[in-house]
Amino acid sequence: MSMNERFIGIPGGRWQLNTPSLLLDLDAFERNVTVMAGQVQKSGLALRPHAKAHKSVAVAQRQIGAGAIGICCATLGEAEVLDAAGIPGLLVTSPVVTPAMIARLASMPGEVMVVAEDGGNVTALEQAFAAAGRRLPLLVEVDVGQRRTGVASPQQAVDLARRIAASAHLEYRGIQAYWGHLQQVPDFAERRRVVQRQAEIVRAVTAALREAGLPPAIVTGGGTGTALIDAELGLFTELQPGSYLFMDSSYGRAALWPGGASPFETSLFVRANVVSVNRAEHAVINAGLKSFATDSGLPFAARGAPAGTTYKFMGDEHGALVYAEASNARLALGDGVECVVSHCDPTVNLYDFLHCVRGDRLVEIWRIDARGR
Amino acid sequence: MSMNERFIGIPGGRWQLNTPSLLLDLDAFERNVTVMAGQVQKSGLALRPHAKAHKSVAVAQRQIGAGAIGICCATLGEAEVLDAAGIPGLLVTSPVVTPAMIARLASMPGEVMVVAEDGGNVTALEQAFAAAGRRLPLLVEVDVGQRRTGVASPQQAVDLARRIAASAHLEYRGIQAYWGHLQQVPDFAERRRVVQRQAEIVRAVTAALREAGLPPAIVTGGGTGTALIDAELGLFTELQPGSYLFMDSSYGRAALWPGGASPFETSLFVRANVVSVNRAEHAVINAGLKSFATDSGLPFAARGAPAGTTYKFMGDEHGALVYAEASNARLALGDGVECVVSHCDPTVNLYDFLHCVRGDRLVEIWRIDARGR
Repeated sequence: MSMNERFIGIPGGRWQLNTPSLLLDLDAFERNVTVMAGQVQKSGLALRPHAKAHKSVAVAQRQIGAGAIGICCATLGEAEVLDAAGIPGLLVTSPVVTPAMIARLASMPGEVMVVAEDGGNVTALEQAFAAAGRRLPLLVEVDVGQRRTGVASPQQAVDLARRIAASAHLEYRGIQAYWGHLQQVPDFAERRRVVQRQAEIVRAVTAALREAGLPPAIVTGGGTGTALIDAELGLFTELQPGSYLFMDSSYGRAALWPGGASPFETSLFVRANVVSVNRAEHAVINAGLKSFATDSGLPFAARGAPAGTTYKFMGDEHGALVYAEASNARLALGDGVECVVSHCDPTVNLYDFLHCVRGDRLVEIWRIDARGR
Repeated sequence: MSMNERFIGIPGGRWQLNTPSLLLDLDAFERNVTVMAGQVQKSGLALRPHAKAHKSVAVAQRQIGAGAIGICCATLGEAEVLDAAGIPGLLVTSPVVTPAMIARLASMPGEVMVVAEDGGNVTALEQAFAAAGRRLPLLVEVDVGQRRTGVASPQQAVDLARRIAASAHLEYRGIQAYWGHLQQVPDFAERRRVVQRQAEIVRAVTAALREAGLPPAIVTGGGTGTALIDAELGLFTELQPGSYLFMDSSYGRAALWPGGASPFETSLFVRANVVSVNRAEHAVINAGLKSFATDSGLPFAARGAPAGTTYKFMGDEHGALVYAEASNARLALGDGVECVVSHCDPTVNLYDFLHCVRGDRLVEIWRIDARGR
């Protein structure tokens, strides 16, 4: 249980929270859920949003409630947690390879779809599901330029799809094609250009599969940064964005969006308190390397700090809010500040709870159920 | 419960673990505990090691078992968890400032010592402990050059100590002086020089307190990087190192240690599995931005990978092990690798369990009880 339960519903409860705490602005979050669902629906595609951003049953339920056909999971641990909560349409978007993890997959109560890219792995999956007396739906993972996972050619895709289709306990369902490396190409027109170029791989793989009598029923991929573009390609049957829920500062950069304005709002904040004001040049807050992911740059104080203040890491549990030179405004001991994070997925993974706020109220606390899994 | 419980005690259980998992080499860990305890004892000081590195009751119990007088905590959450488990001699090394957190401190079952640096904060603590009918032991936090927390002059230290000593429900116990910014000055002789220079602040503060009739019974500080030097200053009564237990690659750099050899061994590893071998230049493992802290550089594969292999982040859940150009050795799908991390504290904070191994056996699983708190 969160130590902030007792602040739920109290006027001004938001300002009294124990910190560092992860906040979710529910109004902005709900608009993000609705806007993405509407955009994808308008394009005639299905939405299977990615749980790697939120790892939370409560969030997945709201995505399903807004029309999503299922939820993507980056790990087996995420899928186990969501499956146990009755979330339908789960897809594990990375290969499940080792004996221990294949055994977990074969013993999961619900039906979960996974991706594969290796013939030996397909054989191991067939054996495990034969032993369990069950069937496993599979997608062929296609490398569309990220050089991370996936088959490297249309011929390899056909060979693997054939092997899956010929396996008694596997069901060939289609392909996954995810361009993670293109999600944040800064300029929208340039991003569209490189996506269209990489889409030729998907087109060639799809054509080869059709020709081999193995047309993909599912073509899944896409992310927050490319969703608008992915939807116009005529290749995907469904999209799997995740970060649109929260909009970290990496995805929030205006240049990323056509016309310079994101259709999504920042809904995720780290709330912290000032714990030292003994230095003229900065105040120190109780949020450091253990409160923010550090791979994509610095957080910034969006609320509660004087304009122009910048954040500086000061160790595992502390950060400095450095005042702008021209500013005379100063923070006081105990003041609360709320920071926008630079990368939402690994930041959410640092916390056990999302503190859902509307205005000055804490209205609910959602568990980040699959944190660390 | 860890999903790896069933591998405890099984020959070869280590190689079958679900991954990514945090491993603790128990033999190396136990030697580290013993070596630090012996070094500090030999110098005539007390040891109050820092839980911010491990956040684990099981580890704290072993440190106490080896003679530690107590345990330092960076956060109230760590102190609550260790206090509930009966760990004695807790010291919270950062100011406790907000009403919510002061209320938690005043309602903790055991006696916990904290630091303070602000007169208003001292008044708030006195009021809370008066209301609770309890007494709170306090240290004056002294800034020794890090510019993070602490009073900035001997006079401020005396003023605050006097205020604490005059408070009916507070007990003045001494000072804390921690030079976190000096822990990893690369050259040992240079590190000794700058520590000796900053130690003049501690000397001046201590002298001023003595002169004011407020001699500090406790002078606490020091870390893994400076402990050997701190012990020879004749200023401290106790030391509070943490990372010596695990020895990440930052602390493991040979230049840090006199004679070029650390007295401590790396005991902490992230175990991962190869999930893709479809590229000639690298293999992909299932450990990325959510499995390693990224603030202090890259992890490296210490076991299981060909010599010369380097790690590259490939997203939240993946990393590439890039083969050396001259190497023909290749990893196979499913292979296990074990990586040394660049910064242990925030890496440990990503996991719920320490998997304790000896040779090929998983012998115990310890909970990282205060993770995220």
